[in-house]
Amino acid sequence: MTTVKAYAAREAKGPFEAYEYELPEIGPDDVDIEVISCGICHSDLSMLDNEWDLTQYPFVGGHEVIGKVAAKGEHVPALEIGDLVGLGWNSRSCMHCQPCLSGDQNLCPTIEGTITHQHGGFADKVRCHWGWAVKLPDELNPITAGPLLCGGITVFNPLVQNDISPMSKVAVVGIGGLGHMALQFLNAWGCEVTAISRSRDKEEEARELGAHEYIATDEDEPFEDVQSKFDMVLNTTNAMLPWDDYIATLAPKGVLHTVGAAPKVEATVFPMIMGQKSLKSSPLGSIATTQKMLEFCARHDIAPMTEVSKMSDINDAFEKLRNGSPRYRLVLTR
Amino acid sequence: MTTVKAYAAREAKGPFEAYEYELPEIGPDDVDIEVISCGICHSDLSMLDNEWDLTQYPFVGGHEVIGKVAAKGEHVPALEIGDLVGLGWNSRSCMHCQPCLSGDQNLCPTIEGTITHQHGGFADKVRCHWGWAVKLPDELNPITAGPLLCGGITVFNPLVQNDISPMSKVAVVGIGGLGHMALQFLNAWGCEVTAISRSRDKEEEARELGAHEYIATDEDEPFEDVQSKFDMVLNTTNAMLPWDDYIATLAPKGVLHTVGAAPKVEATVFPMIMGQKSLKSSPLGSIATTQKMLEFCARHDIAPMTEVSKMSDINDAFEKLRNGSPRYRLVLTR
Repeated sequence: MTTVKAYAAREAKGPFEAYEYELPEIGPDDVDIEVISCGICHSDLSMLDNEWDLTQYPFVGGHEVIGKVAAKGEHVPALEIGDLVGLGWNSRSCMHCQPCLSGDQNLCPTIEGTITHQHGGFADKVRCHWGWAVKLPDELNPITAGPLLCGGITVFNPLVQNDISPMSKVAVVGIGGLGHMALQFLNAWGCEVTAISRSRDKEEEARELGAHEYIATDEDEPFEDVQSKFDMVLNTTNAMLPWDDYIATLAPKGVLHTVGAAPKVEATVFPMIMGQKSLKSSPLGSIATTQKMLEFCARHDIAPMTEVSKMSDINDAFEKLRNGSPRYRLVLTR
Repeated sequence: MTTVKAYAAREAKGPFEAYEYELPEIGPDDVDIEVISCGICHSDLSMLDNEWDLTQYPFVGGHEVIGKVAAKGEHVPALEIGDLVGLGWNSRSCMHCQPCLSGDQNLCPTIEGTITHQHGGFADKVRCHWGWAVKLPDELNPITAGPLLCGGITVFNPLVQNDISPMSKVAVVGIGGLGHMALQFLNAWGCEVTAISRSRDKEEEARELGAHEYIATDEDEPFEDVQSKFDMVLNTTNAMLPWDDYIATLAPKGVLHTVGAAPKVEATVFPMIMGQKSLKSSPLGSIATTQKMLEFCARHDIAPMTEVSKMSDINDAFEKLRNGSPRYRLVLTR
């Protein structure tokens, strides 16, 4: 038995309070991670508020964890006590279904989440299957790398899944927690990168992060100069977009890929047929893609922009997420 | 100057009547095809009726042509007088834009159609750019192969574009002019093939054409046994489908590919994200893909099921298409 010191909310929208719970004896394929830092993702707020009707209280959020392997089961390969690892949205997959055996563990039908099926990383320890504890390259900063494991992989995976090439022209819709990482990835990937946001407020920052072009959608005819241009438009927002307008900005064979959970997509079929255009989507990424992303970040010096505070100030941080505009990711440290 | 003896309609929904027109001197990259047979596609009827508001009268339809090269321009490579060729929906592409140079001539932004930009194949001759006159393998029957050039390539191309593998499980929605060819292609491709139609009327025929399984959507809970099953669902109908129900039948990474011109697609985003599912579409196929399709048909003895009549009976044939249920493609011969 291991005692975990965590922060838990007792009810929807409730404050986080100190909370202790016991972990049973470690399973043969599991590791316990001693938490160094943990990002706060917007989905932590959605879970806190029980927006998706699947939260169990007491609720311990936190799924952008960086920490050290503190214990390991007897069948754990490749990880040693003390190894620096990251843990994201997913904490466990069956490892024997077709998607798992195909390397698509993120599509396992019985996948378990770090804050949906167990207690998460707003704690001194968190447990997971060894596969989802991904080794952190030495070059990455353990205080700020956490958001790569959820927001980062969410926008990195579409580049892999859509075979985006360094010759591609890609637009990122929404310059926030996800979008600001997407701009960095795409610039380092060698693409021509366009940032799309409502106003010009974020233009300077977007260009510093890697955007070559910038479109403000509250201006007149924002898409006039980008008809049939983009190989991929990556939507990171939850908003209902003018889907047909975005499809018109796609080059032949272009993809409108949404990782933002807008309620629905809809599109006129005829322009899709004529241009062989697609509406796609994806969740997070596989274990191997997460490893590759962390290597890529190390090689290209990519990091989320973070505002760091102590885990004991967790309620202030959530207040900032709920009512403020953090640029761009909040991280708690122990 | 070459005189062409054709059948033209003088007005929307009007009858076809004998009609002669002059072709100017042949261009350096063009060929004239002496028509042997020409299929009637549902889009000929849509054009006759000016459904898409782009028909010019007198209207000469016909874009599923089989014939012999009767004349060629001075720059035409690879084709000789007398060669047996097929001509489909497209008759001309610029051959120098990025899609053309990438081998995606079907996505050329200035592509021209056989019945939308010129007079078509309900005639003794039809002209086109040499690239779109695709050589017919000796094994194919010149009387019935025409529908491969439009309906055939429309359902063959999605297999290529989506990297469908012989290990894939694929469903075909709509067993008609397009669907009955899709079943043959997919069976020869090595896939597990499911035919989806409203009733059981076409079950026996669908199984003969290559379907391993059959679903009648007017029965109770038709998709109960095929949740998360298909790597691709190929929609050949123009109907608004219960898109979310079909998306639920897709395996992880599955594609709902529509070649039927339904007015629009719409889908709830969350299941798409979780299963990394896509809504896709495509128009016809490239020149090389059309060549490969014809080779594939020759190797696997694939042919459209046709009802053949004389071109002089063109108005009877159109009446059958408009009010009957031809199984499955109508062809006119000279």
